[in-house]
Amino acid sequence: MGGVLDGVPSGLLISIFEIQKEVNRRRPGQSEFTTSRSELDKVEILSGLHPDINDQGYQLSLGSPIGFVIQNKDKKSSDYNSLSDVYRPSHADFTYEAKYGVRDHRGGGRASARETICRVVAGAIAKQILGNDIIIQAYVERMAGIGIPADAQFDISKTKNSNVCCPHEITSKAMEEKLRSLSSEGDTAGGVISCRIKGVPAGWGEPVFDKLNARLAYAILGINATKGIEFGSGFAGSENKGSEENDSFKTLGKTHSNNSGGIQGGISNGQDVFFRTAFKPVSSIKSKQKTINKAGLPIEIKIEGRHDPVVLPRAVPIIEAMAYLVLADFYLTQRVQLNS
Amino acid sequence: MGGVLDGVPSGLLISIFEIQKEVNRRRPGQSEFTTSRSELDKVEILSGLHPDINDQGYQLSLGSPIGFVIQNKDKKSSDYNSLSDVYRPSHADFTYEAKYGVRDHRGGGRASARETICRVVAGAIAKQILGNDIIIQAYVERMAGIGIPADAQFDISKTKNSNVCCPHEITSKAMEEKLRSLSSEGDTAGGVISCRIKGVPAGWGEPVFDKLNARLAYAILGINATKGIEFGSGFAGSENKGSEENDSFKTLGKTHSNNSGGIQGGISNGQDVFFRTAFKPVSSIKSKQKTINKAGLPIEIKIEGRHDPVVLPRAVPIIEAMAYLVLADFYLTQRVQLNS
Amino acid sequence: MGGVLDGVPSGLLISIFEIQKEVNRRRPGQSEFTTSRSELDKVEILSGLHPDINDQGYQLSLGSPIGFVIQNKDKKSSDYNSLSDVYRPSHADFTYEAKYGVRDHRGGGRASARETICRVVAGAIAKQILGNDIIIQAYVERMAGIGIPADAQFDISKTKNSNVCCPHEITSKAMEEKLRSLSSEGDTAGGVISCRIKGVPAGWGEPVFDKLNARLAYAILGINATKGIEFGSGFAGSENKGSEENDSFKTLGKTHSNNSGGIQGGISNGQDVFFRTAFKPVSSIKSKQKTINKAGLPIEIKIEGRHDPVVLPRAVPIIEAMAYLVLADFYLTQRVQLNS
Amino acid sequence: MGGVLDGVPSGLLISIFEIQKEVNRRRPGQSEFTTSRSELDKVEILSGLHPDINDQGYQLSLGSPIGFVIQNKDKKSSDYNSLSDVYRPSHADFTYEAKYGVRDHRGGGRASARETICRVVAGAIAKQILGNDIIIQAYVERMAGIGIPADAQFDISKTKNSNVCCPHEITSKAMEEKLRSLSSEGDTAGGVISCRIKGVPAGWGEPVFDKLNARLAYAILGINATKGIEFGSGFAGSENKGSEENDSFKTLGKTHSNNSGGIQGGISNGQDVFFRTAFKPVSSIKSKQKTINKAGLPIEIKIEGRHDPVVLPRAVPIIEAMAYLVLADFYLTQRVQLNS
Repeated sequence: MGGVLDGVPSGLLISIFEIQKEVNRRRPGQSEFTTSRSELDKVEILSGLHPDINDQGYQLSLGSPIGFVIQNKDKKSSDYNSLSDVYRPSHADFTYEAKYGVRDHRGGGRASARETICRVVAGAIAKQILGNDIIIQAYVERMAGIGIPADAQFDISKTKNSNVCCPHEITSKAMEEKLRSLSSEGDTAGGVISCRIKGVPAGWGEPVFDKLNARLAYAILGINATKGIEFGSGFAGSENKGSEENDSFKTLGKTHSNNSGGIQGGISNGQDVFFRTAFKPVSSIKSKQKTINKAGLPIEIKIEGRHDPVVLPRAVPIIEAMAYLVLADFYLTQRVQLNS
Repeated sequence: MGGVLDGVPSGLLISIFEIQKEVNRRRPGQSEFTTSRSELDKVEILSGLHPDINDQGYQLSLGSPIGFVIQNKDKKSSDYNSLSDVYRPSHADFTYEAKYGVRDHRGGGRASARETICRVVAGAIAKQILGNDIIIQAYVERMAGIGIPADAQFDISKTKNSNVCCPHEITSKAMEEKLRSLSSEGDTAGGVISCRIKGVPAGWGEPVFDKLNARLAYAILGINATKGIEFGSGFAGSENKGSEENDSFKTLGKTHSNNSGGIQGGISNGQDVFFRTAFKPVSSIKSKQKTINKAGLPIEIKIEGRHDPVVLPRAVPIIEAMAYLVLADFYLTQRVQLNS
Repeated sequence: MGGVLDGVPSGLLISIFEIQKEVNRRRPGQSEFTTSRSELDKVEILSGLHPDINDQGYQLSLGSPIGFVIQNKDKKSSDYNSLSDVYRPSHADFTYEAKYGVRDHRGGGRASARETICRVVAGAIAKQILGNDIIIQAYVERMAGIGIPADAQFDISKTKNSNVCCPHEITSKAMEEKLRSLSSEGDTAGGVISCRIKGVPAGWGEPVFDKLNARLAYAILGINATKGIEFGSGFAGSENKGSEENDSFKTLGKTHSNNSGGIQGGISNGQDVFFRTAFKPVSSIKSKQKTINKAGLPIEIKIEGRHDPVVLPRAVPIIEAMAYLVLADFYLTQRVQLNS
Repeated sequence: MGGVLDGVPSGLLISIFEIQKEVNRRRPGQSEFTTSRSELDKVEILSGLHPDINDQGYQLSLGSPIGFVIQNKDKKSSDYNSLSDVYRPSHADFTYEAKYGVRDHRGGGRASARETICRVVAGAIAKQILGNDIIIQAYVERMAGIGIPADAQFDISKTKNSNVCCPHEITSKAMEEKLRSLSSEGDTAGGVISCRIKGVPAGWGEPVFDKLNARLAYAILGINATKGIEFGSGFAGSENKGSEENDSFKTLGKTHSNNSGGIQGGISNGQDVFFRTAFKPVSSIKSKQKTINKAGLPIEIKIEGRHDPVVLPRAVPIIEAMAYLVLADFYLTQRVQLNS
């Protein structure tokens, strides 16, 4: 597994430690609800950073593409051999074959959740391009039908203490209990991740074809298992009247409400940008399922191997990574946009 | 107002009449709920189609970019002069100025809904590239807090008979009544548009960075006033268990349920593709609003001019147009993808 | 004829007068060697510049795409009707038809030299983005087999006084005489344009896939009738030994010789960038030519209409325009490349 | 060293053996005129080809990006340590530092000729996409001031028998002798490579911004040490009269002469496409050179390490590779262009 990140300006000090820290957050085996594969997920940088110019764990960006690999020590392709002739329900087996006329069934290939590790590496670099002024924090808001109550008070920094990445302690416990119960039945769960971005200055995003919300949606819905995205007051806000929904100005660059989620006409307005993303329940359920094989004949399958009962806790750093990548793009392009 | 559509294959017969018909659907002044500006919105083709090779209203595509303009006979920029020094709540006035350091306040510029006319023209051409096998139908599902009941039966082809583009007659009447009431208070409404795409073959969309859902989301959320998008069972489906949500196969390329909205791993699976889009209530409310001017001082404004109390009926053909454009791209790229 | 230039930063004062001045340089009818069509070639700006913020002939860039049109008052498509069924030698008639299956024979379509007017408009804007530090000057060095002697002294600013855009007076006269003689025989000429760019700072261009020379070559060979391009000492320099050809440093950013033409490893080194471009003789000769028609049968044709006996004088501003466009791109991207 | 080639259609049988064969052609240590580094240059495929579906040395393309690496067993970065503070004449040392503010001096980095190995790998895959109908053959036409006589007869297939890739035996011998003499003086040579492409059907290339010649020039001038490119009769042809230069049609898709080099209006016309590329003499001469160091002070350097006295023989497969890549792009895009 590897990737290449182009467009990183030269002369930046990039911390490899910070990259690895982000990668570790999405690593399996961190709680009882994530698979216990012994993937070390050690990031190796191949190019673009100068290993000799090393100031306390930082490496200097050279302006060239940053290539990286993450070795997979543990993956056994044989786990998947029994699945080469069947189409698992709600997996991409059938669609890949329809698209390409051929399918590499080993490990789910590019449809595997493992692909997202590269997104996290790239996002951790994008985060360092943006510096400390921009802070992106995602957390699990709903899972398995259980959600943080609308009026609940919570400290978003507690996300990291929760096995399910839910910062509201009581809800977190309830989610865990529900998950254990589902898991014991061989079933799986989905849910909703909230993401809040602080520090985006007014003026990022393009007015017509590259609206900030459109680009975030494109990036986020590129993550596997997503089902939808909404900004600001979202679907609920579409029920309101204009007089209720409008965000009136308090001062220059400061509004009373933030139903818009920090974006007007595709461009950031200086308020917090926030959005919610829905994830479907994991398709690899352990209980028996009816499906068909390549010949179109009905068969019953039981998906073996280690699979998380829920994808959301590990998706939290992926959501953040994709948002950092989108913002880094707009940060850099805005340098060109405004003549100064 | 004009645009250029590149990438249309040569040798296609394109009907100008069909283009104009789509444009007329989004034109204002079609019902009591849309502004009565006498915009004729006549599409003129400047290039890319051969006017002399004209077979019963069709023109032959030349393979060159199709340039077009739509003259605006009626727009009075003076309507907007009084707004040059204020920031209207939930408009893009402030964000444009933050981005560019300058703002062209005449008619809202590129943030104006009028910009979408080019999308409709391009979409009407994309529709003809795709031919008759692919049918996209959007309709208003919720408006002003009123929605088609979950168990209601309706004929989607009746959308065109409704003043608010809602195919369920009773709901349509209720929406209209509610809208009249809101309008008389100087207020506005938002809502949700559903869109269903029939006939997409399995195999369209890219597996990682250009997933079919990601590209649709990017295109749709590029439309002004959108707040969110969800595919298949969407946010509601994220509450379900895997065993409930999985779409099991009936036959090759045919599933029992369609919670995925016709997309697996970013690639179409041959079922109907469908999604829902949330629109915020129109920001230009007629009642007085508090805001600030360029100096940051609080003032009260009353937005004059003709503004729709709701954007949804006119957004229906825009949603369809953007979906046709995305599908035409994948149709053409898939010709290259699969070696044959 | 029209175009759209995207990516111009906002907040720049752009002179419409300077745009029109460049366009006038390429206009036909300026000397006895250019056709006398009464094309006014008046540039109209449609978007992207604010007409009301007009400071002594300058308009403010808004950051949005700059759309423009140039009306063609005079073109008579009927001139070309007789050619609809034949393939003119060394024209693009046959290749267009092979590519598209259809050909719009009116005025040569996109293969017409008239297409270059848009390049000149865009280049004139790019020139203003770059400001006064970068000066691009092209001139005719060889024409009809006659060239400026290698050891000749001349003032490049005299280019504009020459009917054939050759700054060396004696050579210019000889070229004119030769051209009159060729023209009277119904024949045409080609030649070489030299282009010198002063003021490019060291560091522009990308090291692998977007080398400054590669991008200039791509832009320049996109002009019709070009046959080749060489940088610095070019083909002649390839005959030399390394010890002769190497450009040794005098001081930081200053070399003794400039055989490299100001580019090392695809990146500007602070010296003058220069290159030479070969143009073929005009294909539309007035004397009779043997060719074939669509049926593949041999016929004789005589090309009517007004055609220049040589394309070079009018190509001088086009070369400059394309070079300005390439440099403006690198100027803007370099703002993003270097972290500061 | 590695790369990623995206856009390869699925379902193609790709021979790894053929890829390795092309890579071996550009490998050093093949004759007395190329360095004797023991680089094995073994290509490893990481993705995009299915190793298990292996039919007599062929692997099936999966439609996903083809990632590959070539391990460098031998490179000693220490060879370059002494150069970290100086700017070698006509190298990219100074320009990289001007661009990025930092330079990775180990092995020349991305300005190293070693970078071209990836181009050869990608080109070898592109060649297999195109199939057997398109044949690209490059050879050394001029070197160190010695060239194949204009009227010489030779068999292009003999290129591989020559130590300097010149198919004309007498010229090849003369070049070798001259090179030995230059090499013994610590000096280097440049020259010209000719490239001829057979089998391109009429209709490839785009008429305005992606002309076939412009795209070839962009690709070829992206190769290090190139100084210029000319198509068909090139610079020499620009001296001719139109009546001499025009390529008249013999039959449909067949012309008497081919001064255009197989391209009209940016689009292939079905004749052979051919072009010549000038290369500068190698900048790393062994004799002492005056230059400056980072402080701007004059110093004398002697470049150590193994360097070829001429780059042309190893550039022959690189020219072919870049041409295959450009043609594969047009082959695939033409599938979309023409409606059928």
